[in-house]
Amino acid sequence: MKKLINAPEQVVTEALQGMAAAYPDLLKVNLDPDFIIRADAPVPGKTALVSGGGSGHEPMHGGFVGLGMLDAACPGAVFTSPTPDQILAATRAVTGPLGALHIVKNYTGDVMNFEMAAELAKEDGIPVESVLIDDDVAVTDSLYTAGRRGVGGTVLAEKICGGAAEAGADLPSLVRLCREVNANVRSMGAALTPCTVPQSGRPSFELAGNEIEFGIGIHGEPGRRRIPLESADRIAEMLMAPILADLPFRRNDPVLLFVNGLGGTPLIELYIVYRAAHRIAAAHGLQIVRSLVGSYITSLEMAGTSITLLRLTEDMLRHWDAPCLTPALRWGA
Amino acid sequence: MKKLINAPEQVVTEALQGMAAAYPDLLKVNLDPDFIIRADAPVPGKTALVSGGGSGHEPMHGGFVGLGMLDAACPGAVFTSPTPDQILAATRAVTGPLGALHIVKNYTGDVMNFEMAAELAKEDGIPVESVLIDDDVAVTDSLYTAGRRGVGGTVLAEKICGGAAEAGADLPSLVRLCREVNANVRSMGAALTPCTVPQSGRPSFELAGNEIEFGIGIHGEPGRRRIPLESADRIAEMLMAPILADLPFRRNDPVLLFVNGLGGTPLIELYIVYRAAHRIAAAHGLQIVRSLVGSYITSLEMAGTSITLLRLTEDMLRHWDAPCLTPALRWGA
Repeated sequence: MKKLINAPEQVVTEALQGMAAAYPDLLKVNLDPDFIIRADAPVPGKTALVSGGGSGHEPMHGGFVGLGMLDAACPGAVFTSPTPDQILAATRAVTGPLGALHIVKNYTGDVMNFEMAAELAKEDGIPVESVLIDDDVAVTDSLYTAGRRGVGGTVLAEKICGGAAEAGADLPSLVRLCREVNANVRSMGAALTPCTVPQSGRPSFELAGNEIEFGIGIHGEPGRRRIPLESADRIAEMLMAPILADLPFRRNDPVLLFVNGLGGTPLIELYIVYRAAHRIAAAHGLQIVRSLVGSYITSLEMAGTSITLLRLTEDMLRHWDAPCLTPALRWGA
Repeated sequence: MKKLINAPEQVVTEALQGMAAAYPDLLKVNLDPDFIIRADAPVPGKTALVSGGGSGHEPMHGGFVGLGMLDAACPGAVFTSPTPDQILAATRAVTGPLGALHIVKNYTGDVMNFEMAAELAKEDGIPVESVLIDDDVAVTDSLYTAGRRGVGGTVLAEKICGGAAEAGADLPSLVRLCREVNANVRSMGAALTPCTVPQSGRPSFELAGNEIEFGIGIHGEPGRRRIPLESADRIAEMLMAPILADLPFRRNDPVLLFVNGLGGTPLIELYIVYRAAHRIAAAHGLQIVRSLVGSYITSLEMAGTSITLLRLTEDMLRHWDAPCLTPALRWGA
């Protein structure tokens, strides 16, 4: 295991301390229980947005805390759900009378622990609603999931709901908007290499020199099948075909096209994948009105890519374009 | 070689086509000769900023084109200097009567080709000045360099000079400012893995399972020595010590601390390195007033990190904070 770390059991704590030191103007970091909140939380008159999940997917979710996105993020241990007390503490720290929306990726542990935290918060008189993100078309009922997994669509949901919350949306509107984003977003990924969880010290799976895992999960869960390495164009085609067919996306749909890196893949390769995905989407008759290219939901040092396609409403587009000021996404403030 | 590409000889062209498709609002991309310019270039009443170098360091330099940073970037083949005609064409495309500053990383090929392009531009009546960046304290006179190599300081010089140019600075002021940034910035890096140039197909060097290259160049050039893998804290100490000693940085100096990823290292590890570097800088008595953490000057999929430290003047700080709107850096527009 060749990593820039000190001790496997200190990875999450030390990364959080690094974030706290790097972004004192944007974030406050609490340790034990671990959570990251906006420096100006709780923001008066605002419905709070809280998300979280296992660490190892940086910048998700801590890098999305700030004006126009999340009020709080709860990082669990690497690839491990945050605990209910951690989620409850984060929710308490950022939530006022307007309540909080929990945005939860659909993994069994996350779902269970966010549910428990929401129950506890409600007992305290804090209004909490939850929306599950399950945009991965690769598989249903995978290693850690009943139903589809939540992946790249989560980034888009957090930005769009974050824009709406900043503009004053109430909890029921945010629930509707987040469900609408989830209903209109589809994703799929492929891995070229595995990754190694620091506390295990061994790659989570093995791939031969010429093999890729097609339909990979963000924790290295198996996808649809192993296939020989193909060209970037062919991999983009194989990812886009099930995405396009699933919603289905139709001619003239306005879309946001997001090409994501899994952590170990450099930007020059993501641009080549984006080129292919853009051509396929255009040939399908879609109007690509917004794009995102970069490593936003990762799997430690895994090499590979995922593609996410969102059919935009005018509302979503307005909130996507709204100012945001977070470590990972910032514009127009 | 396991990469998301189609054909080694098409990597740069296709990545540029991907950028053009992803950022139509920000950039215009010209192919053959290859260059990237601001969508609104030439900007009337503005001194132009032009940079470039081999591809494989993305987002540098193409990702820094836009309002508040570069007017043009010239990407060469992977790890290969751009040609004089390419640099000349880019300079012509963005430069008005106020002339252009070429920001050049100190590699022999880059220096020669930018010099030739500047001569040709001057023959055309275009005022051009050049400033070399040579901030790497690791070695002098390395594989492709007479003198020190230009590395992470280039990102900071391009942002700071870009802010000044946007605010109306003339060519002589930009030359002074860029030299001042270069005089006050120091960097050093370490690699955990090599990278593979697509057209070669083989790793540019070999490292044993427990070895790192300390003082690595951004093209995989040898550094100071090979050493066994150390903890993130120890690697940060070994990088910071020569950086701090070289300028030297002194108690109460206000600084910008930049922890960079080399392409294959995930953000969670960079936060751990940032934590260590921040503590070392603070223990040295420095005031860390700005930070940057992420992969901004990379070496394809190389795993590793570099640290850059810049002593800030008030002018530099103002131009660092000025709005920018580029693919890789954007804030406050």
